Amino acid sequence: MPVISTASAFRYEPDVPILIPGINDAHAEALHDQRRARGWRGFIAPIPNCTTTGLAVSLKPLHDAFGVRAVTMTSLQAVSGAGRQGGVLALDVIDNVIPFIPGEEEKVERETRKILGHWGEPASFAVSCTCTRVNVSDGHLETVNVGTERPTDAAAATAAMNAFGTNGLKGLPSAPERLLRVDPDPFRPQPRRDRDAGDGMTVTVGRVRDEPVLKGVKYVVLSHNTKLGAGKGAVLLAEWLTREGYIGRPS
Amino acid sequence: MPVISTASAFRYEPDVPILIPGINDAHAEALHDQRRARGWRGFIAPIPNCTTTGLAVSLKPLHDAFGVRAVTMTSLQAVSGAGRQGGVLALDVIDNVIPFIPGEEEKVERETRKILGHWGEPASFAVSCTCTRVNVSDGHLETVNVGTERPTDAAAATAAMNAFGTNGLKGLPSAPERLLRVDPDPFRPQPRRDRDAGDGMTVTVGRVRDEPVLKGVKYVVLSHNTKLGAGKGAVLLAEWLTREGYIGRPS
Amino acid sequence: MPVISTASAFRYEPDVPILIPGINDAHAEALHDQRRARGWRGFIAPIPNCTTTGLAVSLKPLHDAFGVRAVTMTSLQAVSGAGRQGGVLALDVIDNVIPFIPGEEEKVERETRKILGHWGEPASFAVSCTCTRVNVSDGHLETVNVGTERPTDAAAATAAMNAFGTNGLKGLPSAPERLLRVDPDPFRPQPRRDRDAGDGMTVTVGRVRDEPVLKGVKYVVLSHNTKLGAGKGAVLLAEWLTREGYIGRPS
Amino acid sequence: MPVISTASAFRYEPDVPILIPGINDAHAEALHDQRRARGWRGFIAPIPNCTTTGLAVSLKPLHDAFGVRAVTMTSLQAVSGAGRQGGVLALDVIDNVIPFIPGEEEKVERETRKILGHWGEPASFAVSCTCTRVNVSDGHLETVNVGTERPTDAAAATAAMNAFGTNGLKGLPSAPERLLRVDPDPFRPQPRRDRDAGDGMTVTVGRVRDEPVLKGVKYVVLSHNTKLGAGKGAVLLAEWLTREGYIGRPS
Repeated sequence: MPVISTASAFRYEPDVPILIPGINDAHAEALHDQRRARGWRGFIAPIPNCTTTGLAVSLKPLHDAFGVRAVTMTSLQAVSGAGRQGGVLALDVIDNVIPFIPGEEEKVERETRKILGHWGEPASFAVSCTCTRVNVSDGHLETVNVGTERPTDAAAATAAMNAFGTNGLKGLPSAPERLLRVDPDPFRPQPRRDRDAGDGMTVTVGRVRDEPVLKGVKYVVLSHNTKLGAGKGAVLLAEWLTREGYIGRPS
Repeated sequence: MPVISTASAFRYEPDVPILIPGINDAHAEALHDQRRARGWRGFIAPIPNCTTTGLAVSLKPLHDAFGVRAVTMTSLQAVSGAGRQGGVLALDVIDNVIPFIPGEEEKVERETRKILGHWGEPASFAVSCTCTRVNVSDGHLETVNVGTERPTDAAAATAAMNAFGTNGLKGLPSAPERLLRVDPDPFRPQPRRDRDAGDGMTVTVGRVRDEPVLKGVKYVVLSHNTKLGAGKGAVLLAEWLTREGYIGRPS
Repeated sequence: MPVISTASAFRYEPDVPILIPGINDAHAEALHDQRRARGWRGFIAPIPNCTTTGLAVSLKPLHDAFGVRAVTMTSLQAVSGAGRQGGVLALDVIDNVIPFIPGEEEKVERETRKILGHWGEPASFAVSCTCTRVNVSDGHLETVNVGTERPTDAAAATAAMNAFGTNGLKGLPSAPERLLRVDPDPFRPQPRRDRDAGDGMTVTVGRVRDEPVLKGVKYVVLSHNTKLGAGKGAVLLAEWLTREGYIGRPS
Repeated sequence: MPVISTASAFRYEPDVPILIPGINDAHAEALHDQRRARGWRGFIAPIPNCTTTGLAVSLKPLHDAFGVRAVTMTSLQAVSGAGRQGGVLALDVIDNVIPFIPGEEEKVERETRKILGHWGEPASFAVSCTCTRVNVSDGHLETVNVGTERPTDAAAATAAMNAFGTNGLKGLPSAPERLLRVDPDPFRPQPRRDRDAGDGMTVTVGRVRDEPVLKGVKYVVLSHNTKLGAGKGAVLLAEWLTREGYIGRPS
């Protein structure tokens, strides 16, 4: 049967697309091949790691407009990302930061390229991540530096992000009004104050500036790791797959 | 009279060196010219911004060994850096991160190049910073990506940092045994557990890894912002300037 | 003109009632005398201190049913109670508790007796408070020990609280469905998880137990200090005073 | 063999004293009877629960001087008290308080009376506790209201606490200079700033005030739950038992 999954299992198999509706819709086509090749009546469609989501969504309009060439990213991740079983102990994060989340950096680097590439051909840009855990309950904040193939600057990148439409999500029950928004306040986004934008389904970008090292732009991005980045994001994908006919089409 | 200062005033004047003993000792010579040119009996010798300190100390052995070409840095700064007057409100940082510290990024970019350059000629590498405030009392953590002029990797960079000696500080009352140390535990450094290394005077580096985007290495660095990065660092500078004859030489 | 106030000014004047609609409605009558005596066309009607609110609301059904004889209370107050001007610094509350809030204990002791007494005659029971500040953004938690004049126990006190109706608030736009509720989960109430009950207008009680020292019951109570305990509570009072004819009656 | 234990096992058996050196030294005599009755060569000597320690130490001089009649106590406990196995999740305590620690209140009530009574006859005063968990790494803070048999007030209680000597601990390697001290600053004690007093072995009391409800005094007390209240407290007991001849006397 069709399985929409938040788990990392299957994500890196060549016939399994990692889907974010509105970002890489064309990859869903691969589900047909997957079905056939595996002899399944259903399919497996994973959403990305919760740390990948905000990065991939915010890079998408930049990649479309200017071509992403290189990315460095530092995440300041919420403790809810680790769940309750073996979750982050208060003892380890009070008045503290944990500078390492095993396996996380590799996942984000790999998934971002897979999502933003053409199907079967991951994007060729390099991604270099450092993932940390901070004293926040929900909401992953990421600082992102992007080098682009074609010239850009803060104004052009902001315009591209603001123009980014997600009409394909319109009408889906869990879809936000906007999947991506840019906040002009330099003190935003902040986890506690912005994670629930769009009921936890809107990615918020702020502090878009020119980037002198990688030649492009840098910014800060926030997404809700247990809503868009987990269960509710999976529900949105299920809604979209249903409307597009991947699920429930009577045979 | 000689003034050792933690304030930003004077830091960017062309005849004022920003001094970290053990890192850019030769710049102290400029104090003689400063004295003469200004007709002062004393001098002004500022230490850097508390966020510059950890970055400059950790880059020094890499710059010496491989030549730093480019740096991207994200800081996760402690609230004590903002002091008490107009300090960070608990309301703003509980379950939260503040992604902007006005003026901080420019200071760190400028000071790092001034300290690691030759006197009168700032280092030519580009530095791109994003400075954030996290829910930590003391200890600035920074994630650093470095591109180098000559090839390096995690092992070579670690070796260079471990070999970095600060014999010039030996015997000074406030000097730590080591100004810089690399912790091999991938979960370190952590602000609460490592800020007091060397009585708050040792900079701790961890997670040294190859850096695919900038072609060099990346790592995490921690320094105590109100000890090495502030009052106690100023005292260490005063001790060093005294021993080197800049202060208290009987006329 | 009529003034509904969250400030402490006027609260302790003999002709000024401290009003919580649903708790001491009869005191509102005093506004007529206040008007006349002061020669005002309007009146001043303050709501209580945000720490008094949860205590007074939770004591009300106990006082009605069993007669309150004595109260000891310890508050664990949120930082938002101190506001932004001169607010609580993060530096003072990270990994910490501040065991003193100047003037707070006296306010709570005095206001609770004034609200739960007859008009002009404060309740005669003794109240002894210790007010502390904890690392919480919103929501004051209080541990309360109550000695009663007539015998009670956990079951009877819970029943009295559960039976406490606030029909007088029905239909007011800011009124919650219930002003007071008892949560049977021993791990509740918790500030982050329960402060927004009833859109921040419901007081939540938990852990009702027999009290061996004061001979009565003890419990934990939570109320939202910046909603019910401040602006939104003042709006509710204004709505109630309007419906009851104290405001806006055309002359 | 002699076992000094921080575990709760054996604490409530009638032939097992719960020992705090300097507080109930005479109870150690019972170890001889325990040995004989159980036919052991060694003995079991538990220290109290970490939440009992600060309460018992601070009540001792009051009980000696004025006779304790009744106690209500609310604890604001650090997360380290729960350890790492099944420890407190960050998710549960960020921007939050947990108002319940299963079994804790009963332990503290029972142990306090056992420690402060005569051997074989627990103290007769009633103790009523509410134990909560706050966002603090180390250091249990407690607000205490005490009713006394003989009249007292803040000044007399402070004097009794200040006069409390622990000469019997002199010379033991882990003993602090003072087991109990009163801080006159009304904003103290605070967990982060005072837990390490006496290297974590001094109990700090503050805010001693008259208590109108229980007729006695109220105050705030802090003790380090993982030093005096755990391993280091056990070491101190071992040192004391050794010096007093309970351990290591050659047979």
